[in-house]
Amino acid sequence: MTMSNIISIEKILHGDRRAVARAISAIENDNGEAKKILSSLYRHTGHAYRIGITGPPGAGKSTITNKLAKWYRRHNMRVGIIAVDPTSPFSGGALLGDRVRMTDVELDDGVFIRSMASRGSLGGLSKKTSEAADVLDASGVDIIILETVGVGQSELDIAGSADTTVVVLVPESGDGIQAMKAGLMEIADFFVLNKADRPGAEQAVVSMKMILGFRAHNETTWMPDVLKSVASEDKGIAEIGALIARHKTHLEQTGELAIRRTKRVRERIEEMIQEKLEVDFWNTARRKRLEDHLRSVLKFEETPYDAAKDLLGTFEPEVHRPPDDSQ
Amino acid sequence: MTMSNIISIEKILHGDRRAVARAISAIENDNGEAKKILSSLYRHTGHAYRIGITGPPGAGKSTITNKLAKWYRRHNMRVGIIAVDPTSPFSGGALLGDRVRMTDVELDDGVFIRSMASRGSLGGLSKKTSEAADVLDASGVDIIILETVGVGQSELDIAGSADTTVVVLVPESGDGIQAMKAGLMEIADFFVLNKADRPGAEQAVVSMKMILGFRAHNETTWMPDVLKSVASEDKGIAEIGALIARHKTHLEQTGELAIRRTKRVRERIEEMIQEKLEVDFWNTARRKRLEDHLRSVLKFEETPYDAAKDLLGTFEPEVHRPPDDSQ
Repeated sequence: MTMSNIISIEKILHGDRRAVARAISAIENDNGEAKKILSSLYRHTGHAYRIGITGPPGAGKSTITNKLAKWYRRHNMRVGIIAVDPTSPFSGGALLGDRVRMTDVELDDGVFIRSMASRGSLGGLSKKTSEAADVLDASGVDIIILETVGVGQSELDIAGSADTTVVVLVPESGDGIQAMKAGLMEIADFFVLNKADRPGAEQAVVSMKMILGFRAHNETTWMPDVLKSVASEDKGIAEIGALIARHKTHLEQTGELAIRRTKRVRERIEEMIQEKLEVDFWNTARRKRLEDHLRSVLKFEETPYDAAKDLLGTFEPEVHRPPDDSQ
Repeated sequence: MTMSNIISIEKILHGDRRAVARAISAIENDNGEAKKILSSLYRHTGHAYRIGITGPPGAGKSTITNKLAKWYRRHNMRVGIIAVDPTSPFSGGALLGDRVRMTDVELDDGVFIRSMASRGSLGGLSKKTSEAADVLDASGVDIIILETVGVGQSELDIAGSADTTVVVLVPESGDGIQAMKAGLMEIADFFVLNKADRPGAEQAVVSMKMILGFRAHNETTWMPDVLKSVASEDKGIAEIGALIARHKTHLEQTGELAIRRTKRVRERIEEMIQEKLEVDFWNTARRKRLEDHLRSVLKFEETPYDAAKDLLGTFEPEVHRPPDDSQ
């Protein structure tokens, strides 16, 4: 450990907003510093409770996130928000037609908001959001809200890796039922039907509960419920907060929380390994060789499978010895 | 090449539906046979034109796909459809509340429809859809339509890898503008505003054209346009077909088609390599070792970074020699 770190671990641990922001930027840019910071912070994590908020575009995820953050603030809890939803006003995705003003929570010193880009990160997105959440966790927040759009594999992975995952739907256009089939059903710990003052809300809730009723369950199993909210009017927010708390207690009592956290760590290690294997593989020589192969493949002189096989044949990765074996 | 292949290459090349279906199943199941089949088929590909149809859930992608397929049939072209949209009736995602009947195209011998699951494929989704498209291509179809839901990185990747990518939007709820910001803008060769008989359609088209106008372009650059359709009434379908044809001509004349196809092949080779590296890495011994590490990481005795480093240190992949070097 050297003192050359520009980003101070001490400052992050004391909740310094600027240090936290810079650490998350280092993660986003994937520079060498990020790994050092995260290694130093790791043993200070594990305190914060992670909540995933997901659902289709336009369901009101940001409004719920906003109101829920304020609800936690009223309970004197510190909140970190990570928005990876391209349609979220938090992540700058809704500048045009922006319907939610975020400034009220943004100006609160007990809330830290960070948006992360969902494009161009080549599959490392869930690793990066997890790492950003670790920084927030070590900085002393009590609650971390991960807001992601609920369509698409990597986006669902992020929300699904939270301790409690809340899926937000709206009454319109049969979205509720369709969305429940699109991978959201598996990750939801409970559903919120937002904009519940609109026509069709009651019917949507009934359909959703009916579908949920088909799931196998017994008395010790958590049974996902459906809550109603009108987040823009702050209706239903306390109920969401209370159900999250009840779910947390359930996870703790059944040992499920430890299982979820183990799964999360396992996935992160797997992602790190995948990333490193790719970086090691795609050196300049192999990139150049790929271009040569491409020419033959496009002339149908060679198949893509033969090209891949040849490239793999050239791979002998640098062997990394664990530090404790080096003696 | 042995005769032990259960799936006949000859039959696929002659367009036998059953052989095609079985080949795509082999790809989905990722069994050893798939690679052999694809290697044999590869030099028979390159004829079909690939169209990506994407957009938010409920925009009417399946209806457009359906009507467009029928339009191509009227022009005596054979059509293959691959649906990876979890909300598509093609992929069985809209059994509840199904609003589109697909049987009219499904019963037509000149249309082959295949749905592919978008969950549980661990990142191999775009590779598998590309390979399934290759099978259809070799089977003699003229047009391949890839229908994917347009939110989420891997789903956008699939649509974006087509020769022409059509983004379908609807007038409601400002979706148009929001969706244009969510990664769809970059991949769209043109937009279709479907359900254009609904209120707000004209305004949505104006906004979309305004946003598109901001993009840098000159006389030789393709300028994405916005078409209107009411697909359920077959309105605007011929115009979509005509604009796809015009875009194809543009791509051919500018050399852009070759560039897109090169990019597609490059990405496939990269995906195959990534997959193989992971399979080689995660053998039983290393899986077991990961479990040991997990225990220490969860007790905060070790960081996930050290665990990953140790696991990587044990990796020396089998060296694969290309066949032509083995002599």
